[in-house]
Formats: sequence, C-alpha cells, structure tokens
Amino acid sequence: MPPVLLPPALTAPPAFTVRDPGYEARTRESFERQGAMRTLGARLVGLQPGFCAIEITPGPALSQQHGYVHAGVIAAIVDSAGGYAGFTLFPSDASVLTVEFKLNLLAPAEGERVVAEGQVLKSGRTLTITRGEVYAERGGKRTLCALMQQTLIAMHGKSDA
Amino acid sequence: MPPVLLPPALTAPPAFTVRDPGYEARTRESFERQGAMRTLGARLVGLQPGFCAIEITPGPALSQQHGYVHAGVIAAIVDSAGGYAGFTLFPSDASVLTVEFKLNLLAPAEGERVVAEGQVLKSGRTLTITRGEVYAERGGKRTLCALMQQTLIAMHGKSDA
Amino acid sequence: MPPVLLPPALTAPPAFTVRDPGYEARTRESFERQGAMRTLGARLVGLQPGFCAIEITPGPALSQQHGYVHAGVIAAIVDSAGGYAGFTLFPSDASVLTVEFKLNLLAPAEGERVVAEGQVLKSGRTLTITRGEVYAERGGKRTLCALMQQTLIAMHGKSDA
Amino acid sequence: MPPVLLPPALTAPPAFTVRDPGYEARTRESFERQGAMRTLGARLVGLQPGFCAIEITPGPALSQQHGYVHAGVIAAIVDSAGGYAGFTLFPSDASVLTVEFKLNLLAPAEGERVVAEGQVLKSGRTLTITRGEVYAERGGKRTLCALMQQTLIAMHGKSDA
Repeated sequence: MPPVLLPPALTAPPAFTVRDPGYEARTRESFERQGAMRTLGARLVGLQPGFCAIEITPGPALSQQHGYVHAGVIAAIVDSAGGYAGFTLFPSDASVLTVEFKLNLLAPAEGERVVAEGQVLKSGRTLTITRGEVYAERGGKRTLCALMQQTLIAMHGKSDA
Repeated sequence: MPPVLLPPALTAPPAFTVRDPGYEARTRESFERQGAMRTLGARLVGLQPGFCAIEITPGPALSQQHGYVHAGVIAAIVDSAGGYAGFTLFPSDASVLTVEFKLNLLAPAEGERVVAEGQVLKSGRTLTITRGEVYAERGGKRTLCALMQQTLIAMHGKSDA
Repeated sequence: MPPVLLPPALTAPPAFTVRDPGYEARTRESFERQGAMRTLGARLVGLQPGFCAIEITPGPALSQQHGYVHAGVIAAIVDSAGGYAGFTLFPSDASVLTVEFKLNLLAPAEGERVVAEGQVLKSGRTLTITRGEVYAERGGKRTLCALMQQTLIAMHGKSDA
Repeated sequence: MPPVLLPPALTAPPAFTVRDPGYEARTRESFERQGAMRTLGARLVGLQPGFCAIEITPGPALSQQHGYVHAGVIAAIVDSAGGYAGFTLFPSDASVLTVEFKLNLLAPAEGERVVAEGQVLKSGRTLTITRGEVYAERGGKRTLCALMQQTLIAMHGKSDA
C-alpha cells in the first residue's frame, strides 16, 4: 500500500494550547506507571503537544497464532499513544481515561520495530478525539499496519499521580 | 479546533492503481442510483482515484432536535464518500458494500455547506479501508465536525449497474 | 443467520432509574423536532426506560445503488434509537448528543419494514453507552441486518426543548 | 449498572452449523500458539460453537497508570475471545484474522478475575461478526466493564497450524 495524500485541512501545522508547561515530565511519569507497557516491552519514543509515539520489538512474547504481533498488542500501544497524546494537552490536575477506540488492521505487523503514533484531532474540556496509525518497519521500509480512532475523557480534579 | 499536522507518512502523494479507466463515469452513475442521496439533496462534488467528496446544504429537512445536521445524515454522506472513494479503484465488474464504519462527532454541523470527504488508505482485493472527514463551512470558515473510519468489501463478478 | 443466545448476564431484567417521570412525552416531543427523521419517514414505535425503537418503510427514496436501504439511513435510525433510549433516563434539564457510534452491516435491508432498536447498557452521569440492532421484516420473517455500539453525552442544564 | 434485558430476537438459542467436528482441539491448539496470551497470563476458559471465554488475573503486570487493567489488555483478551468464537465455526483448512474491532470501556477492570466473552452474531463464508463483553469479578459480584463489536475474515485454504 502506498503512502496517502490526506485532504489539505489535515496537513496544516497544529496549534494546540499547552495548559501545563510540565506536560512532558507528567506524561512520561504516567507512562512509567503502566505495568502493561512494561510487560509488553513498550517504549515511549516520541512526545509533543498532542502527539505521542510508542514502539515495541516484535517477537514470540507478543505474537498471535501465526507469529505476527497480536492485534491486542497493537491495540494496547496505539491506545496508550492516543491516550498520552491527549494527556499532553490536559491541565496538571486531570487524569485521562479511554472511553472507546476502534482499530482496523491493514497488514500483518512484523519486522524489527512496530511503532504506534497517536495524534489529537480535537481537545475539548471533557472529551478528546484522537487518531492513531501503527507502522511496521523492516530493512528501512515502513508499512502502515493499523488505523485507530479514539475518544478520551478528562477527569478534572483527579490528578493522575 | 485548529488544523492538525499528521505524521509524514500520511502526507506523501498517493499512488493507487486505477484498474478501470472508466471509473469516473461508473462511479457517478452509481451515485445517481442512490435514492437516499437524492432524498438528502446530496451532491457528488469531488472524485479522484481513491477520493470522493459529497456535500449537502443544512436545513430543517436534515436536522436533529436542536436544528443541527442529524448525525445520521452526516453518517450517510461520509459513508457514501468513503464507499465511492473505494469504488473508484475497483475493476469494472465489481460492486461495493459497506462492511462497517465508525463515526465520531466533533462539532455541531451547521452553516452554508457541509462536505464529507472519503479517502482510501488501503485498497485490497477483497477489503478496502477508508477514512473520512466532514467539514461545515460558514462565511469562508471551515470547521472539522466529524471523523470516520470504514471497511468496504468488493463483490467481484457482480457488476454494480 | 440464526438468532443468538447471549451470555446470561445480558438477559436479566433491566433496573434503570427513571429520573424524569415525564420521560415519555419529553422524548416523543424531541423526536418530533428531528426534521431528518421526518424526511426519512421514520416513526418512533417503541419507548421504555432505556429502550427505543424506530421504524422505516423501505423504498426508492431510502435506497443505495442496488435498491436496498442505504447504510446511512440504517445509521440514522439506529443512531436516533440509541440516542433516545439514553434520553429516556436523563433528567428533564439535560440534552443528548451522540459522541460516536460504530455500525456493522450484516445483511441487505429490504422488506415491508425495517426497525432499529436501541438499548442502554450503561447510563452514567456524563456518558451513556448503548447497543443497537436493526431488523428487516418480510412476510413475517425477521432478519438481523445491522449491529451498533454507541456513546452519548448528557449536556446538563441545557434543556432539549 | 444493572444487568440488561436485550430484545427477544437476541435471546433465542443459537443454531450455528459446525463445519469441523474437531473445532475444539483446533481452537485450543491455536490459542496455545498465541505468545501474547501467554505473556498476559490469559487462559481459555470457555469454548462452544460460536462462543469463547478468556480470563486474566488483574495485577501490576497488566495495569494502566492507576492500577486498573489496561484498556489494551482488555482489548487483547476480548479480541482473542471474539476471534476464537468465530474460529470454532470455520472449516478445518481456514485461518482467522481480525479485520477490525471497536471497544467501549464502561467501568474500571479490577478484582480477582476479569473474563472476556466473545459471541458470534453472523458467520458468513468470508466475514464473521462478533460481539464481546468483559466482566470484572470481585467477591462474587460481576461488573460489566467493556463492550466490543468485531469483524473477522476467514482465510480459506490457509490452515492455521
């Protein structure tokens, strides 16, 4: 599958308001508390306001029955990537919970690295909407293997820590 | 909500293979047979390989209880936009059916024009995956009001006409 | 496709708290204000706390390109059915908005009547989660043709009327 | 949240055709090959034609940042439960892949046991549609904590083993 040209309005620069200048430390600290990410060997490898990238290394411990990365593992890293993309834009006294997400699997995930990227598309006071893409990388080639769309809720007054 | 910078891999030019050079006439003719689009006053206003745009004019006949465009009407035009985006890439002897789609509503849809844009992200032999965005336009300003993710199936050997 | 036995926990009687004894008149009045439902010829044919059914009569005005009911029309009635199922449980000073829904199409919708049933599965203060089923009826036979899962938000202090 | 009464048509007994009498051994053997399920400590605890249940024991290794079971772990077990529910109905020479799924989180997952139940609602030659529910159990009390809707594809002629 070739790369894809998205409509013009989705390619312009972002302009999200960062409500907590300490968003990076706050987000990384929260990620460290996710035992499930540690169990999957997942690493937070990219963080900007409204954006988060999380990678894993494919292997037998993360596989489905044919040896590819399990769809549930793909779901786990792209759910966290979307969730922390949203969390970067939250005030410091709010927690994030996933309301729901939907995941399409486009190609088997295998190779040296699989990376999930979450991007905020709307950051509201209560609800945040994100999209995510998951890529498998092998020998310098990047394959789009999953697409996600997600709804998050901010729990105000419930500090994450 | 500001426009959004998507990851680099999603902004490169598309390279879809057109299997039927007569895709445009075939797609427009199929759209004309959708009585539901006529009932909603929907117009096909953009068509390229892997891309389709459909617009409506907001008004009382398309409204929900507060006067905005009904989420189901948004769903109808973005489902058709995604479906015909996929259909442009089909061979001439195949029909398209929607397997499923998921729609997030981000902002009330109102204004002079509401336009749904569907874009293919993977065109497989059996399944096609698309994303869609719906924008409301008022006084030259464009607001992103819905996001869709969709799965289509190609029915080979069942000509659409 | 045969009918399906769902897990025991989902078949016990409901026990939702009705916060507004006038829920039925309030819900029917809101439905009447949905111009899109009138345009589709949709009728509200069932209403209980946490449940709503909406029917349409298939025909050329609601069709997709092969003559079946358009997936977007299915989406519209099942979105309203789920939304009003949730709305029956709201206090009288709250409005309902659809946050998102996901729809699977299982069989072509055709016949004498198509009915969408929405059922609340969780009614929270802010968010409500529903499921929906859409059936096509022909000659006394009922075919399951779509499944929906939906998130609603209650706008407190914003009376619907 | 109370248990919920679903519409009559969804409560009748199932009548799926089992195409492979050896479905149980075939399904259990495939589950054993899912390294990701082993990593999460997941056990297959229920299997019938069109139905599969998978359980985990909540704990720090499966947690999100607040100590509850991570949404991605919930996703992983309910995706496998739906997938193997569908797989029970496949012929012996077909593999199963998840096309997509959508997950709503309704309540924090914690307690002594979390169990995901997948149920087929339509088993077609190419596509299978399932629904899933995830329950958390503590002290004999069962809480519905997630709802799923899923599309599977059968890869005929590609034996799973």
